[in-house]
Amino acid sequence: MSATQTKKIEIIPSTTSKINEVDFENLSFGAVFTDHLFECDFIDGEWQTPTVKPYAPFLVDPSTRVFHYGQAIFEGMKAYKDEQDAIWLFRPDENYKRFNKSAVRMAMPEVPEAIFMDGLKELLKIDQAWVKKGNGNSMYIRPFMIGTGTGVIANPSDNYKFMIILSPVKSYYAGEVKVIVAEHYSRAANGGIGAAKAAGNYAGQFYPTNLANKEGFQQIIWTDDATHTKLEEAGTMNVFFRINDTLYTAPTSERILDGVTRKTLIDLAKSEGIQVEVRSVLIDELVEAANNGSLKEIFGAGTAAVISPIKGFSYKDHYYELPKLENSVAADLKLKLTNIQNKLAEDTFGWTVKV
Amino acid sequence: MSATQTKKIEIIPSTTSKINEVDFENLSFGAVFTDHLFECDFIDGEWQTPTVKPYAPFLVDPSTRVFHYGQAIFEGMKAYKDEQDAIWLFRPDENYKRFNKSAVRMAMPEVPEAIFMDGLKELLKIDQAWVKKGNGNSMYIRPFMIGTGTGVIANPSDNYKFMIILSPVKSYYAGEVKVIVAEHYSRAANGGIGAAKAAGNYAGQFYPTNLANKEGFQQIIWTDDATHTKLEEAGTMNVFFRINDTLYTAPTSERILDGVTRKTLIDLAKSEGIQVEVRSVLIDELVEAANNGSLKEIFGAGTAAVISPIKGFSYKDHYYELPKLENSVAADLKLKLTNIQNKLAEDTFGWTVKV
Ligand SMILES: Cc1ncc(COP(=O)(O)O)c(C=O)c1O
Ligand SMILES: Cc1ncc(COP(=O)(O)O)c(C=O)c1O
Repeated sequence: MSATQTKKIEIIPSTTSKINEVDFENLSFGAVFTDHLFECDFIDGEWQTPTVKPYAPFLVDPSTRVFHYGQAIFEGMKAYKDEQDAIWLFRPDENYKRFNKSAVRMAMPEVPEAIFMDGLKELLKIDQAWVKKGNGNSMYIRPFMIGTGTGVIANPSDNYKFMIILSPVKSYYAGEVKVIVAEHYSRAANGGIGAAKAAGNYAGQFYPTNLANKEGFQQIIWTDDATHTKLEEAGTMNVFFRINDTLYTAPTSERILDGVTRKTLIDLAKSEGIQVEVRSVLIDELVEAANNGSLKEIFGAGTAAVISPIKGFSYKDHYYELPKLENSVAADLKLKLTNIQNKLAEDTFGWTVKV
Repeated sequence: MSATQTKKIEIIPSTTSKINEVDFENLSFGAVFTDHLFECDFIDGEWQTPTVKPYAPFLVDPSTRVFHYGQAIFEGMKAYKDEQDAIWLFRPDENYKRFNKSAVRMAMPEVPEAIFMDGLKELLKIDQAWVKKGNGNSMYIRPFMIGTGTGVIANPSDNYKFMIILSPVKSYYAGEVKVIVAEHYSRAANGGIGAAKAAGNYAGQFYPTNLANKEGFQQIIWTDDATHTKLEEAGTMNVFFRINDTLYTAPTSERILDGVTRKTLIDLAKSEGIQVEVRSVLIDELVEAANNGSLKEIFGAGTAAVISPIKGFSYKDHYYELPKLENSVAADLKLKLTNIQNKLAEDTFGWTVKV
């Protein structure tokens, strides 16, 4: 690994830029990419030369392993530009660690820190004009790795491709989110891959989510697959419940993604004097709290949407609407967090890292 | 769909052939592909012109959905050449139906029968010289579909690519297979995607299987994830247990792939007067049967290996070796089945279909 870590990043600048074609005021999430990408291949046990190069399609064999056996993991993180045009990352070490945790669970090679971090920084530097400041602007960062070996035999790939691509985004507004509590479908098994940010975990949610959409619900709150009583997380968000003045969120486990926003909000809320309890909330508790009025808020927490307030939930064909609050904890925490991320408030936690 | 189904298959023959470079006596499973492939894209809600064309790599964008959210399904089937050089498929309708069942569960479009079946037949015709007769030879067929839309947002893809590739194989000998019964890891959740032939189901098994390999076991027998007591299936095989003279195999469920070999063996065994019970075998029963000598055989059943006898199993760090039998049911059923598949015995079931 040490030999690998010292390999210098090769930089092949693009001769043209697409930046003038982009309407930065009307960005659809994750649809536009910058001029460059970062790439590093893992071939026969060795990381090859890391490269920043023009964003472009690449060739794959029809028998490429990822298409058949699904070795594919990713991360989602953001970079922000401050008023002095410096670019900042938010807790990138957490994403790096989680990426390699996912890699281990999916029998893929761990990416050396120098490749992941230096690659990301070089990429952000070459495409820095694409990072816009102010008003909810950020650069969504997508590191990912796929099995690129060939052959249709159900074994781990021998070769892999690690890439980082960048997509400028505006603040994400999911609209009014109504959720349905999972009574039959599940996203993760005990002893399964739910804690990995593995591509297959997402595809499995699309069909039940489509069914929910048809009934007028935007998201599903997943429950444990054995009893469907413990409230776990949503599609790409961890979930918080506010009952009276306490925030509850499920403990991380093999079934749940250990979200960076989740752990950040736990610390931020505690620092505000808000009581936080990390424990499974049961659906019966939630229904009871909704019925007796102690359920004040539910919100999702994740990198893309930051905090997404939930308007109501459905369980056993009954819809429970949440009260409209003047001063919601969700709105308060969201403002505090985005101010830290955008360098508009002091970061006493040491979460922000300059590129 | 009807407009689509009448679209004629375009045929673009390869100007060269790799067939003379292939050592058909030393084929490694799934590693060599024929000169052509079948391809049909689904774009903006419509199946495009189905095409047989030279096997070649294709271009993908780094943000291609399958890399990020894992919409990818496949099938595994075989074609056989008889002594008169006719090519036969084995129960292709079962694979076709299962493919579309997987497609629905993964929120992908169903492939019209004309595209799947006619495409497969045209492909087998153009590459018929690659289908070898006799002595365990067959053509392994890999239909698959991937999400080819672009953009890093966790929604179903808008576009898809359906492909069929062909790989000539020899009879598969897995060696002596010792298995370990899963006590912690799992392959499928209740309400999950275990019954779909989805790429992500396989990647999730690699890490626990690597751990098993290190302890000297080739495969894992998966158990239900909630209690780890019900014996379900192996990596790419359903599993049969012979206790005294009865064969047991788990019922299909949301957690288990509905194997074509499994259902074929159930019918074949019954037609031989063998008692078959479709019910969950519990690990405690298996241990008891091993201890009292009533456990005679365990074998895996799947398209690739047909039947793979299991030499012994490990549970809670104790290894149970199976008796060596002169006349095993596994060997008997395997011979009967491969004779039908190779047209060496009469197919009274109507399973074989001429191309
Ligand atoms: C399944 C799932 N849960 C939760 C989250 C939230 O994690 P984070 O806050 O690190 O973005 C994500 C990621 O976006 C996710 O995919
Ligand atoms: C998980 C799994 N179980 C069982 C089987 C056996 O199915 P079939 O007999 O249709 O090949 C397969 C497929 O090969 C499989 O992937």
